[in-house]
Amino acid sequence: MKSLVFALAAAILPAAVIAQTNPDQVKEDFKPSSLNQPGQEYPQVNSQGYARFKIIAPSADSVRVSLGLGGRGGTKLKQMPDSTWMGTTEGPLDEGFHYYNVRIDGGKFNDPGALNYYGSVRWESGIEIPAHDQDFYALKNVPHGQVVQVLFPSPSTNTSRRAFVYTPPGYDGHAKKNYPVLYLQHGWGEDETAWSNQGRANLIMDNMIAEGKTLPFIIVMTYGMTNDVKFGGIRSFKIEPFQTVLTEELIPYIDANFRTIAKSSHRAMAGLSMGGMETHTITLNKPDVFSWYALMSGGIYTPEEIKDKSKVKLIFQSCGSKERPDAVKNSTAALKAAGINAVSYISENTAHEFLTWRRSLRELAPLLFR
Amino acid sequence: MKSLVFALAAAILPAAVIAQTNPDQVKEDFKPSSLNQPGQEYPQVNSQGYARFKIIAPSADSVRVSLGLGGRGGTKLKQMPDSTWMGTTEGPLDEGFHYYNVRIDGGKFNDPGALNYYGSVRWESGIEIPAHDQDFYALKNVPHGQVVQVLFPSPSTNTSRRAFVYTPPGYDGHAKKNYPVLYLQHGWGEDETAWSNQGRANLIMDNMIAEGKTLPFIIVMTYGMTNDVKFGGIRSFKIEPFQTVLTEELIPYIDANFRTIAKSSHRAMAGLSMGGMETHTITLNKPDVFSWYALMSGGIYTPEEIKDKSKVKLIFQSCGSKERPDAVKNSTAALKAAGINAVSYISENTAHEFLTWRRSLRELAPLLFR
Repeated sequence: MKSLVFALAAAILPAAVIAQTNPDQVKEDFKPSSLNQPGQEYPQVNSQGYARFKIIAPSADSVRVSLGLGGRGGTKLKQMPDSTWMGTTEGPLDEGFHYYNVRIDGGKFNDPGALNYYGSVRWESGIEIPAHDQDFYALKNVPHGQVVQVLFPSPSTNTSRRAFVYTPPGYDGHAKKNYPVLYLQHGWGEDETAWSNQGRANLIMDNMIAEGKTLPFIIVMTYGMTNDVKFGGIRSFKIEPFQTVLTEELIPYIDANFRTIAKSSHRAMAGLSMGGMETHTITLNKPDVFSWYALMSGGIYTPEEIKDKSKVKLIFQSCGSKERPDAVKNSTAALKAAGINAVSYISENTAHEFLTWRRSLRELAPLLFR
Repeated sequence: MKSLVFALAAAILPAAVIAQTNPDQVKEDFKPSSLNQPGQEYPQVNSQGYARFKIIAPSADSVRVSLGLGGRGGTKLKQMPDSTWMGTTEGPLDEGFHYYNVRIDGGKFNDPGALNYYGSVRWESGIEIPAHDQDFYALKNVPHGQVVQVLFPSPSTNTSRRAFVYTPPGYDGHAKKNYPVLYLQHGWGEDETAWSNQGRANLIMDNMIAEGKTLPFIIVMTYGMTNDVKFGGIRSFKIEPFQTVLTEELIPYIDANFRTIAKSSHRAMAGLSMGGMETHTITLNKPDVFSWYALMSGGIYTPEEIKDKSKVKLIFQSCGSKERPDAVKNSTAALKAAGINAVSYISENTAHEFLTWRRSLRELAPLLFR
């Protein structure tokens, strides 16, 4: 459990999301973020990755956005002559998705202009800095799979639990075809909505399937904790209750209700951050359930941990270049040297954030179930 | 179009959500609202339907909640000795679901304690006052259907559009069974998420199917507007573009991708508020597409409008007792007198709000496709 606690601590540290460029020349080509609520002009982003915020709170004393590093703790907004509060990050942000919130007179709120995403055990505001490779997760005119919300019975927790199931395009049209399954876990403070909302897992898969880059497979996303106490219960977190939900309740439900290939040889588990730690622990605890393992900014495997190499078809390990790429690369080299099919991927110029994980899914998918 | 504009105006008026009881005796049995974010203690509701709010914004000058009628414009919170802001509605609220927001120093924000729901063309805070009949929309230990997110091609709007599709329990297990379909529309300022999030349509159906009270059928929910301008484009709203999306794009997609009975005799359209107005117009424009019509707080049909009575299997009309029940009842009587199978339903002690519509679905479902 030591490695889990370690990774959790890393996961909840503020991400180093400020990219390094010259802050003197801010281009005035700001446009509304693609994640704004309908009709909202702010927040905006420019072509360099700067973010600009506008908050209406005429009688407030102070308004601050948690994103960016202007001084400590984010971007301080200034009150304009028209009484609105505005401000721009002191530097460009990393490409991709970022959570943030707004501090108004000492309280923590969301930006009314932005859509909300569940992270940090709360629905947070989200902003998207257009990435140079954003095409791979864009909504395109290609055949689309479905994202199915299921409520599966969980006797061990005495409730119906929610999962989202991605089925690839054509799933309904091929009534006799069965598919392999990837169980894909979110990070600490997130929930089962993260991989399709923030992660765009369905669009990434739709696009890759349309281009023939990956085999079509099913993805199952559920909540990775069973204790619903405040702050996600990180201190009291134990893997066993979730392992029971996943392996004894969810997998049998999915195999009974979707056209899966219900064999360990066609079942993968992957996760980001805390979800990677869960993947690490559960795949080692249950070597007969999964054959394909992937940790995204979520720790590493050591060769000694793998009891029976013949049962492991792939170990995929990734992180952002601003995390600890050497740990991922060295571990992967050691696994390879031990005769295990191991692959590493480093996302350039990203940190512990969703663009790292979107890209990780893009790199992982083509390797699975071959 | 006149009746549409009329109904829209009614829909955006503040709902009369204050129930009538003695405000002197507020019971101190407050509990967290069932719609709070994980681990959040506030907002709270008591057994009488009062709501209590707590907002952290230590240096704010004024904090007000839009819900309730304490003076004009909601409930004014007071700053407590610990610097938090607290307040209780001056009267009990209607049972069921309510949207609200928080005004802090003149800005409009959401309550960080509550989950968000799309209404009024923004993601609003939501609170649930336990209803005496809440059992019918509760999450229970019964077989659950699925809510499927689909992205369907829409050449007329040149994009992929989102819809949610409820499939009843057992849908996947009966690979040869085909189902009738209800197309179910949200109200103004809401979107395709409303009927399953605020409306709990899937849980209502799961529970009724488990009790044998309704035939199983598919429900399709999509966004009822095609113009994405600010404030939902209510002034520039035209029915034709949405009618094209619905009847020429969505219905063919659903019939091709789900196991439907693709006949007008097994296809219903219903909607709440603006969605009722859309239902009214589209069913009359397209008498060969739908045979079952339902308006929920969304206007009425007159006998003269029905060109061919033989094509109409049911007209269901409903509203809350605090709306205009006489209009619904009188219209239904006139339709019946004209030989049309018409049914009215009045939700007791509710206004233009979601408990009216949850109950309306409960009353409508058993009548459909018989």
